[in-house]
Amino acid sequence: MSQKPTTPLLDTVDLPVDLRKLGKEQLRQLSDELRDEVIDAVGSTGGHLGSGLGVVELTVAIHYVFDTPTDRLVWDVGHQCYPHKILTGRRDRIRTLRQGGGLSGFTKRTESEYDPFGAAHSSTSISAALGFAMANKMQGRKGRGIAVIGDGAMSAGMAYEAMNNAEQAGNRLVVILNDNDMSIAPPVGGLSAYLARMVSSSEYLGLRSLASKVVRKMSKRVHSSLEKAEEYTRGMVTGGTLFEELGFYYVGPIDGHNLDHLIPVLENVRDSDQGPVLVHVVTQKGKGYAPAENSADKYHGVPKFDVVTGEKAKSAKGPPAYQNVFGDTLAKLAEGDPRICAITAAMPSGTGIDRFAKAHPKRTFDVGIAEQHGVTFAAGLAAQGMRPFAAIYSTFLQRAYDQVVHDVAIQNLPVRFAIDRAGLVGADGATHAGSFDVTYLATLPNFVVMAAADEAELVHMTYTAAEYDDGPIAFRYPRGNGVGVDLPETPEKLEIGKGRIVREGSKVAILSLGARLAEARKAADQLDARGLSTTVADMRFAKPLDTDLIDRLMRSHDVVVTIEEGAVGGLGAHVLTHASDTGLTDSGLRIRTMRLPDVFQDQDDPGKQYDEAGLNAPHIVEKVLSALQHNSTGVEEARA
Amino acid sequence: MSQKPTTPLLDTVDLPVDLRKLGKEQLRQLSDELRDEVIDAVGSTGGHLGSGLGVVELTVAIHYVFDTPTDRLVWDVGHQCYPHKILTGRRDRIRTLRQGGGLSGFTKRTESEYDPFGAAHSSTSISAALGFAMANKMQGRKGRGIAVIGDGAMSAGMAYEAMNNAEQAGNRLVVILNDNDMSIAPPVGGLSAYLARMVSSSEYLGLRSLASKVVRKMSKRVHSSLEKAEEYTRGMVTGGTLFEELGFYYVGPIDGHNLDHLIPVLENVRDSDQGPVLVHVVTQKGKGYAPAENSADKYHGVPKFDVVTGEKAKSAKGPPAYQNVFGDTLAKLAEGDPRICAITAAMPSGTGIDRFAKAHPKRTFDVGIAEQHGVTFAAGLAAQGMRPFAAIYSTFLQRAYDQVVHDVAIQNLPVRFAIDRAGLVGADGATHAGSFDVTYLATLPNFVVMAAADEAELVHMTYTAAEYDDGPIAFRYPRGNGVGVDLPETPEKLEIGKGRIVREGSKVAILSLGARLAEARKAADQLDARGLSTTVADMRFAKPLDTDLIDRLMRSHDVVVTIEEGAVGGLGAHVLTHASDTGLTDSGLRIRTMRLPDVFQDQDDPGKQYDEAGLNAPHIVEKVLSALQHNSTGVEEARA
Repeated sequence: MSQKPTTPLLDTVDLPVDLRKLGKEQLRQLSDELRDEVIDAVGSTGGHLGSGLGVVELTVAIHYVFDTPTDRLVWDVGHQCYPHKILTGRRDRIRTLRQGGGLSGFTKRTESEYDPFGAAHSSTSISAALGFAMANKMQGRKGRGIAVIGDGAMSAGMAYEAMNNAEQAGNRLVVILNDNDMSIAPPVGGLSAYLARMVSSSEYLGLRSLASKVVRKMSKRVHSSLEKAEEYTRGMVTGGTLFEELGFYYVGPIDGHNLDHLIPVLENVRDSDQGPVLVHVVTQKGKGYAPAENSADKYHGVPKFDVVTGEKAKSAKGPPAYQNVFGDTLAKLAEGDPRICAITAAMPSGTGIDRFAKAHPKRTFDVGIAEQHGVTFAAGLAAQGMRPFAAIYSTFLQRAYDQVVHDVAIQNLPVRFAIDRAGLVGADGATHAGSFDVTYLATLPNFVVMAAADEAELVHMTYTAAEYDDGPIAFRYPRGNGVGVDLPETPEKLEIGKGRIVREGSKVAILSLGARLAEARKAADQLDARGLSTTVADMRFAKPLDTDLIDRLMRSHDVVVTIEEGAVGGLGAHVLTHASDTGLTDSGLRIRTMRLPDVFQDQDDPGKQYDEAGLNAPHIVEKVLSALQHNSTGVEEARA
Repeated sequence: MSQKPTTPLLDTVDLPVDLRKLGKEQLRQLSDELRDEVIDAVGSTGGHLGSGLGVVELTVAIHYVFDTPTDRLVWDVGHQCYPHKILTGRRDRIRTLRQGGGLSGFTKRTESEYDPFGAAHSSTSISAALGFAMANKMQGRKGRGIAVIGDGAMSAGMAYEAMNNAEQAGNRLVVILNDNDMSIAPPVGGLSAYLARMVSSSEYLGLRSLASKVVRKMSKRVHSSLEKAEEYTRGMVTGGTLFEELGFYYVGPIDGHNLDHLIPVLENVRDSDQGPVLVHVVTQKGKGYAPAENSADKYHGVPKFDVVTGEKAKSAKGPPAYQNVFGDTLAKLAEGDPRICAITAAMPSGTGIDRFAKAHPKRTFDVGIAEQHGVTFAAGLAAQGMRPFAAIYSTFLQRAYDQVVHDVAIQNLPVRFAIDRAGLVGADGATHAGSFDVTYLATLPNFVVMAAADEAELVHMTYTAAEYDDGPIAFRYPRGNGVGVDLPETPEKLEIGKGRIVREGSKVAILSLGARLAEARKAADQLDARGLSTTVADMRFAKPLDTDLIDRLMRSHDVVVTIEEGAVGGLGAHVLTHASDTGLTDSGLRIRTMRLPDVFQDQDDPGKQYDEAGLNAPHIVEKVLSALQHNSTGVEEARA
């Protein structure tokens, strides 16, 4: 096991103002210490490592050169912000990263004035930085907007929209393209090739001397020389044409680990009247930590690990992850059905599509961080007779909502949505929670919306979705491992809009949608023990509702409770709407809906998150008991 | 008044197969007749004219050269599809455009096999065409995907995402960039400038001769010549670098009204092994109809008009349009508040932001068709102390849903959302209906969601939003004119989460959200006449709910009905959830929720649409009466 690293210089730096007191010649040592501190901290907490290691020098250089927090620094996605946190007054809590009550794994406004904009979803940084820049401009205040964005994040349309609007900001906007040629998965598409070509050009190989020249020339501050430097660094040599065409003043590529290049270039950018500027910085993900550098994913996201050996903590053996159950099931189904194909938006392993891709590479489409395109592309595939599965996390499907409505639902096209990370997600916190999908999908005409109670159900639902050609169909399932049930040999085609009774009782009925089913069963046992015979139904479908089942249970039980891993507007709302539509509420109906609370919950262990949300077995029991005890004379009394 | 145009050649063409029998020398005459027919039809129906006139020759050329419908032709946005409809078997119904029961004003799958993909929202075409191309490739079937997309639509990130994924399609994908340098409003941003520069270059001025050379050279089909032709037409001469960098084979620019240029170039593209190809076609919006050519908006969307004079039918004088009430109110508020600024996504006049812009040009941001960027940009502005209003139609805000959740709601930033076109919208039909915003916004923590019952309420809500700095706040209002109430001299700051009683009664309570209030009042009069004393409340807020008011009305009335211009999951669902949370349903509650039906409704007169939706006064009366008559013993009976 490692000892805490020795960091004499870093120990003198609490805030960027301390950093700026150092001599430039000390920044190399500071960077080395900062890197050691990041490695040690993530070794003890787990989290995103590779991205942070790639920007250690860049982080030091930005805070050294620019006037943060007056200059508003926005880290795209935020995976790479740990070094930034250490340098901005949060070193004392860095070993609480991603823990309950600890530092967020992303930038967060409530944590620090040095985090002017929270991130976690990709490609928002240029828009936000432009907002800061223009707000300051309108208010006549000091301060730039600085966005640091990776090449992977550049594949999202949103980044392009922002660049297309950037010109008005002039030199108040600085975009730093952090080009490590690798987002979470190897990047895709034309833009990556473009960047790769630039970097691999013979001109780039002379980077050292080039950068020196650039720095020297730009330093002269003589206009004509500056112009020549411009020509030299920009289009003519390296061809930053894409960015030029969008109105940016392109500088680069620069070696992002060489402070002797970074600092003077950023100083020139800072002092230049030209803008907006795009600084193209080339970095290496995982830089400076051999186990990360040598691993395929560069330690993008890691569990706790031994700093000396790089050995990662093994997760306890357990049931298979939902994503892998899905990926394996789909791969198997596709063997017998050439129409099945799969789409992922830069999340092949997170969605289990990597397993599908191994077996069916030609039917796998990784569209990059481009959910909008991915969904409409899937709609086109469906319209031409394929059976596309768009495998997208619940939270990221938000980015394609209009495409879901306009291209899929209105046209009633059979796109299959495999919605991973439904419900609360643990260490990633509020930005990654899958809270809203049932609400925003079940309100749409034509849609079928399912939720899997366990990994066996996920197998059935994957098959059901494959076989359903009548319109859009979605199925959601949690992050993490299944509950440990046996996987079925043969998947079952579920009847659309039909739930199942998993436990028969007579007094209390629990209507569960999704993976709270296990808690519902536990609660039922406890209620039975109290003499309250309890039925548990797995509704399976939020839409269409199993109205026969609902009516029957409502009519035959004293209390009905719905439970789901989603916000208001989902199963509970639909059940209540049905009950009032049909007059079931007219003469009295003890019904309660249990759902996520009306707050954005911070990161924590998922079990604790559900405790905080009030969606575990004890809460169900409590809800039932309080409903039974409720003196329901309010309405009558007031009327009398 | 005009007579129907004489169209001897067009009369022989019912389908593209007829068109392909004509000689190339006949296509000019056909185009002229087609243009006359479009003008005459739109003169009688109103609708989108300028876009269609701009692509008459292009439409003829595409159907002449390509093998539609096997080649899948996708018109982006669909405004320009009227000539296409005339040539694809729908001429006999062309004078029913945008009418109830008539042809859609957009492409629509259910209308024709020549409409493989419906459109109406911008920038979806390349993704869809790529889907068609790849589906055919995987299935080993014939058929390309052909997208025709305007330069304005290119400003949306989605188009960029699609282009970034296009390379895999090879020559199965053809993108035709229809560059008229004008979407609905004058285009914005770097891309437009880029296109403009290309077109205005000296090389472009020699377009005629250039195009001839290109055609001649490409026809040779000798590889070395072809290479030279490539160099000539592409980067070196016209600089199609942006598209080249994204993996496209760029051809252009071509004069889009010159069939002698269009046809041979498209033939070469069709026969080429290279791909994907982007053909840059320059057209003139409104081409060939003087009144359109001479008007500022090129007759983008017009009412009925006299074909000879171009004179447009005057709309009956009436109350001001909601959008203008909003724009004027905001402009006035901004006089006294330098923090107020406004964002529109290429809809300055549709949202009333044109009125704000006149008074406050430096605080107005037209971001182009880029709702994602617009919302996060607004979040950045808000984070830096501004009071930004993002004025976006309900249906288009769907495109920024993730930004609403991730950048605004989670961070609790005070972005103001002015949501126009809430509810049903008439002639634009299902794709433009604002049905889901209350559902998808009110499920979010931190959000305040209001709906204006009339134009005076809109004034109050605009002011209330301006003054509210505690978090995100949205207010929705309908398309079209107000109801004719007096506008307040001084706007009122509404108490957050408080509704108002507009009519006192004792038996029946109608809880209205938004502009159904007028129908609710009518219904109340009718109910009163039947001896059912009726209260009407304007809830004003879908979130936070006025739970005091709701509880009071529920306790003191026999029947409660909610009504809203939105789909399931909105006001009604939230009221029911509250009622069950608090046990109000336990001992009997006659409550009904009235909402949009679970279907996508086609275009029609808005009054008829609401009739079809069952949301007019007679439906309210009927709902109340049936609730009162309902034999609500179902639950009791079954239990007994």
